[in-house]
Amino acid sequence: MSIVVVGSVALDSVETPFGKVDQAVGGSAVYFSLAASHYADVKLVGVVGTDFPPECAEMLRRRGVDLEGLRFEEGETFRWAGRYDYNLSDCQTLDTRLNVFATFRPQLPESYRDAGVVFLANIDPALQLNVLQQVRRPWLTAMDTMNYWISGKRDLVTQVMRSVDVVIVNEGELRQYAGTYSLLAAAREVLALGPKALVVKKGEYGAVMFADGVYFVAPAYPLEVVRDPTGAGDSFAGGFLGHLASEGRVTMDALKRALIHGSVVASYVVEDFGVRRLLTLRPDDVSQRYQEFRQFTHFED
Amino acid sequence: MSIVVVGSVALDSVETPFGKVDQAVGGSAVYFSLAASHYADVKLVGVVGTDFPPECAEMLRRRGVDLEGLRFEEGETFRWAGRYDYNLSDCQTLDTRLNVFATFRPQLPESYRDAGVVFLANIDPALQLNVLQQVRRPWLTAMDTMNYWISGKRDLVTQVMRSVDVVIVNEGELRQYAGTYSLLAAAREVLALGPKALVVKKGEYGAVMFADGVYFVAPAYPLEVVRDPTGAGDSFAGGFLGHLASEGRVTMDALKRALIHGSVVASYVVEDFGVRRLLTLRPDDVSQRYQEFRQFTHFED
Repeated sequence: MSIVVVGSVALDSVETPFGKVDQAVGGSAVYFSLAASHYADVKLVGVVGTDFPPECAEMLRRRGVDLEGLRFEEGETFRWAGRYDYNLSDCQTLDTRLNVFATFRPQLPESYRDAGVVFLANIDPALQLNVLQQVRRPWLTAMDTMNYWISGKRDLVTQVMRSVDVVIVNEGELRQYAGTYSLLAAAREVLALGPKALVVKKGEYGAVMFADGVYFVAPAYPLEVVRDPTGAGDSFAGGFLGHLASEGRVTMDALKRALIHGSVVASYVVEDFGVRRLLTLRPDDVSQRYQEFRQFTHFED
Repeated sequence: MSIVVVGSVALDSVETPFGKVDQAVGGSAVYFSLAASHYADVKLVGVVGTDFPPECAEMLRRRGVDLEGLRFEEGETFRWAGRYDYNLSDCQTLDTRLNVFATFRPQLPESYRDAGVVFLANIDPALQLNVLQQVRRPWLTAMDTMNYWISGKRDLVTQVMRSVDVVIVNEGELRQYAGTYSLLAAAREVLALGPKALVVKKGEYGAVMFADGVYFVAPAYPLEVVRDPTGAGDSFAGGFLGHLASEGRVTMDALKRALIHGSVVASYVVEDFGVRRLLTLRPDDVSQRYQEFRQFTHFED
């Protein structure tokens, strides 16, 4: 089953206490695609400028990512610069230049419209709704969003939540959306809109899922060193939806396994800068940490 | 098997967005005792002033807590006042008056010296070491500490860590002690001192344990409302050590179950102000949430 992802393609400059990278390929659609590419066929929808390095496009193609939906427009690619201090959960944005991404209007090629899974990464909720109109009968749809859209276009964010099967947001965004500190109360509010499942990302504390009266927790993998948290959330989504696409079921057990897979992929991404680790990830790496996750939490009477 | 706990007995004034209490009984030894009393016989060592309400002592005795080691001294009981805002993990201390606790010198009654389990709650590490010299061949010893002692008496804290079987600290304290953000690196440093297990409390994110090459996670119980987080850590320790005392084993499986029991008890405590919920807790309550914890994390291939 193939997965369509719509989101940003960027050149990121990131500094952490452990090093830095300058104008490395990033963006939500790139992290998601590379993560999900380990599980299923991925079709990317995005936009870059004429300055986008051909080797970055080639790198995505080598991972099997379909770039028919990637538009090359006159101008510069979206650029983002950020700095993390030792508390790697706090990021300071140093610079954001939307460039060609400012006028992004996703257009799905005909070959994308029958995709089984659709992931609406963090873009304007009006565009997310528009993408949903361009696909025919997807098997599973999911969305992410961010504080900017929740404060600026809350009604549209709500419409997207009503329209998808899975909402994937971080803890702070969920609290902001629902206007309450209680994750339970906030989860009830979101699930009442209709999605089957709500996945809440908690950064270094892992992720939790609310679905059909069930609460399920994936702790974070205990890492020796986190070099660069950029892209962890989108890689998580890639592992999560990638696993569901490959399993072809959305039973409760499948959703639980998917949450673990998302956590596994995210745990690898943050060990190195940018997308590097996603390029060398192997099935054995994934299955090893998947089994470790079981040991972290399973207990016997 | 009986448990000796040495720590503070206080009158706490606490304000949270959900209400407040004025001079309610609290302190590390009280929370620990009431929590552990649901699992084993508890013997408390502490000091109070002549103003300590007789009904508070009676309440402890009704829960089976042995107060032979509780000294009543001329003067006032330790008083603490704090305020939590909506982010219940941050507490602002409004007032601390040590009163008779300032000159506390724990003296174990003869009937305490053969206790199987000893918990050194957060007090001056010099006193913690002194208590260890007063017990004969305890089966299991554990300690807690706080930022104040780690910055002021780090060498003594290290000595205590070298002398106990289980170190129970919160995440911030562990990072402060080891001077690193990495919990793995910090855990290695503490375990190299000799303890069998290191338990790290993460507040609303649960608790994790490092022991004998194993990493184990207890997520936090998802609560509708947290009214007052005061005493959660000491109640956790009470459930953890209480369970080990009742099981009479410190195998890896027993340690895992104990971590869940600690989390269960702590999850109840924070639902109401002060020690209230510890007085009404029933075995069914504990076993219900214990089973829920399994469902939060167990997954099948």
